[in-house]
Amino acid sequence: MTSELRLDYLNNRWTLISIERSRRPHDYTVSIYEEPTTDLSKCPFEYGNEDKTPPEVFAIRPDGSLPNTPGWKVRVFPNKYPALRLENEKKREGDGFFEKIGGFGAHEVIVETPDHFKHIQDFNQEEHFYMFFTFRERIKALYQDIRIAYVHIFKNHGKEAGKSLVHSHSQLIALPTIPTKIDTQIRQSKRYFKEKERCYLCDEIKAEIRENKRVVYENSKFIAYCPYGSLFPFQVRIAPKFHSHDFSVVSDNDLRQLSECMEYIVKKLHKALINPPFNFVINTSPPIRDNPVDPDYFYGIQQFYHWHIDILPRITTVAGFELGTDIYINPTPPEEAAKFLIEVV
Amino acid sequence: MTSELRLDYLNNRWTLISIERSRRPHDYTVSIYEEPTTDLSKCPFEYGNEDKTPPEVFAIRPDGSLPNTPGWKVRVFPNKYPALRLENEKKREGDGFFEKIGGFGAHEVIVETPDHFKHIQDFNQEEHFYMFFTFRERIKALYQDIRIAYVHIFKNHGKEAGKSLVHSHSQLIALPTIPTKIDTQIRQSKRYFKEKERCYLCDEIKAEIRENKRVVYENSKFIAYCPYGSLFPFQVRIAPKFHSHDFSVVSDNDLRQLSECMEYIVKKLHKALINPPFNFVINTSPPIRDNPVDPDYFYGIQQFYHWHIDILPRITTVAGFELGTDIYINPTPPEEAAKFLIEVV
Repeated sequence: MTSELRLDYLNNRWTLISIERSRRPHDYTVSIYEEPTTDLSKCPFEYGNEDKTPPEVFAIRPDGSLPNTPGWKVRVFPNKYPALRLENEKKREGDGFFEKIGGFGAHEVIVETPDHFKHIQDFNQEEHFYMFFTFRERIKALYQDIRIAYVHIFKNHGKEAGKSLVHSHSQLIALPTIPTKIDTQIRQSKRYFKEKERCYLCDEIKAEIRENKRVVYENSKFIAYCPYGSLFPFQVRIAPKFHSHDFSVVSDNDLRQLSECMEYIVKKLHKALINPPFNFVINTSPPIRDNPVDPDYFYGIQQFYHWHIDILPRITTVAGFELGTDIYINPTPPEEAAKFLIEVV
Repeated sequence: MTSELRLDYLNNRWTLISIERSRRPHDYTVSIYEEPTTDLSKCPFEYGNEDKTPPEVFAIRPDGSLPNTPGWKVRVFPNKYPALRLENEKKREGDGFFEKIGGFGAHEVIVETPDHFKHIQDFNQEEHFYMFFTFRERIKALYQDIRIAYVHIFKNHGKEAGKSLVHSHSQLIALPTIPTKIDTQIRQSKRYFKEKERCYLCDEIKAEIRENKRVVYENSKFIAYCPYGSLFPFQVRIAPKFHSHDFSVVSDNDLRQLSECMEYIVKKLHKALINPPFNFVINTSPPIRDNPVDPDYFYGIQQFYHWHIDILPRITTVAGFELGTDIYINPTPPEEAAKFLIEVV
């Protein structure tokens, strides 16, 4: 096998699988993530410190405790320093020669556990379920606001992945426009659908099952595999095996299956790469809105788009090659990554 | 001013200028780049160690010294661990359900100075000229090979920007396909040209000069400014003020003007941000080839494409938001970045 460029059809980009630089897990110099010692009384995500954050917009409180008091399992509140605000105007306008949209949107913090010392690799299936349940409820709630065009949910785990506060949390950013990456996925899925009358990701999943070289885990509803055109070494994609365009309408039962799969994969990555920094991102259908520029933009999206989660280990550096070409160099072929993940105990 | 999303027309993407998180240069925690102490006898880029690298493919040797001996000002050789190789086959083919191109290409290292302790911020105008002269000659030479679709040249300065060896160097990767980023720039420039019969970047430069809010430097032939939709804080774009689609045909005289501008900007960034890690990338026209998929692909490219250099300081983290949306959060408005760069002495 020599190096090769692989097409990531869904994102319409190429990845350079660089065999000459091929690396096994222990070849990556991962800086073991040291948790800074923290004065817990100062951590705004602790029980009893609820007044150190903006008032909560959602929480899971099985004990029926009052908002903004202890007792929660998951707690969501606006980011204190939001990148976008619901109070800002959503207006696309010229700015001299250039163009902009006002900073309308939302930026929320999702604290998935009251335990300062528990991280995602320690979560059990129930804790994953509470996390995904919260994601779904927040997306659903925000899509009620007609001005919101997309809600992006992501987690930064570890310093190199952009985590700033130690206490485990995810983030949500609601946007006034469909982001480029999701727009590209929509256009590519539509292109595929127009030709084949089938969903691209359904076909990708079938191919992964048939080829059985990159699949890491499967349960009755979900599959986890290292995508053919992985941007990052040990990248894992988790997707429903049934067709589903919109994460915000997934049933509780399916979220339980997703949680089981997620727990398995996160623990595998943790063991294989010794607590690597990683991001995970949810890719899902935007809410269907009138689109005066392209009235058919959303037509058929229920058939052609397929939501999925990408877990992106951050053990390589995005440098001048990646920034100048949008082609990422990945020194671990996804087949080898899958093999290592399966074999690690 | 509130936060806003700004359109980067040329790259067809949005940037989120986040005012709530607005940061001045001293707010960034830049890890001062510590040069590791090195045993110079082991550095493959030193005079006398030419046998520690693959044989050179180009060098500037004003003293007429022999190849692979000391005496050079700039020296170019294939990367010892190349991401792509000229010996590999260039073949686009199916791979089961998926698609790939064989790992054909070239990967070269450009050592811009024999001085182990000299970095780009220390280069004088002549040293910048030798560097750009070498870039031009290598692109020209590689474009002779009809199989090469694009040559990307970039520099990684500092650890966070992906530099691995301390001794100053740039890299060149010749690709068997036009990378996504350049393809997008071509499509966007063409779209603009079809509507206006003018080059997009010529118009952007005129707008920058007229608005005079983001321009950092100008000489008779070049302009340097912080682009309206900067992905990174303190990003600087250097472009010829005259229309020119192809870096590989720029005259020596123009390269001298470019070098003067580059020296000025690199020294400014070095002072303003205290030796920040950064990448620079050259964006230029691919060589014009037959394109059976889209016979008109290159038609008019001499009129509509405009080469330019982007300098990208790496003082923010690319995290789950950026990876999931392709929208970058930039906490320093380009107008403020330009102001700081102008004012720093």
